[in-house]
Amino acid sequence: MTTSSPLEPDVAARLKRDGDGLVAAVVQDEATRDVLMVGWMDDEALHRTLTSGRVTFWSRSRGEYWRKGDTSGHAQYVRSVRLDCDGDALLVRVDQIGAACHTGAWSCFATELPAVQLPADQRSARQAPEARS
Amino acid sequence: MTTSSPLEPDVAARLKRDGDGLVAAVVQDEATRDVLMVGWMDDEALHRTLTSGRVTFWSRSRGEYWRKGDTSGHAQYVRSVRLDCDGDALLVRVDQIGAACHTGAWSCFATELPAVQLPADQRSARQAPEARS
Repeated sequence: MTTSSPLEPDVAARLKRDGDGLVAAVVQDEATRDVLMVGWMDDEALHRTLTSGRVTFWSRSRGEYWRKGDTSGHAQYVRSVRLDCDGDALLVRVDQIGAACHTGAWSCFATELPAVQLPADQRSARQAPEARS
Repeated sequence: MTTSSPLEPDVAARLKRDGDGLVAAVVQDEATRDVLMVGWMDDEALHRTLTSGRVTFWSRSRGEYWRKGDTSGHAQYVRSVRLDCDGDALLVRVDQIGAACHTGAWSCFATELPAVQLPADQRSARQAPEARS
């Protein structure tokens, strides 16, 4: 990680980094709108992502920059990058080449956990303000 | 945060928590497939989300559990919960009531950053293995 970031100052000022200087980056496929993976970016990884057209992460486990696809060929070409309201997460929409997951799966979110779904008649009567009239 | 989690042991064993005991939770709207927000869950927040049908986060800024919609009315009803390949992120698909963002915006990802898009002819010739023949 760098101490002097090349990231534009107005973007850098909006980031709320964790204790390791990172923000979460959610990657979504532009065509299918599937959520493919979550990676981590520091200022330099975000700078490279914004300026090169290819998604670059900081690997927390390996402690190095990692440009998606350099090893696997499964590149992510940037379509848009959005920052969330409190500055601690990014949404990166991409054209995904091949599988996003290192396991070979299209998405890293392959494991479904058992979860209760409330039926409609057990959902709260409380509605969003705009739904009240 | 709790030390003895009521989360099912096989699920708890798969989580790779950060230094604060948290994993990132990406929330996606089931109908539109828009990515709405990223929140944070410890074991207890995930347990509540899986068993109650309502999305519950751990608030890093306030240091408390936070069931989406209890203040705003903008509840998130769980449709599915998926864990990623390395256990540090969740994808929660929901029926979103009203706006997901505390600003009143539908999605928290309202700020688009300037990003380069590589035109097709500048994309690498390297293809995914399955695209080679």
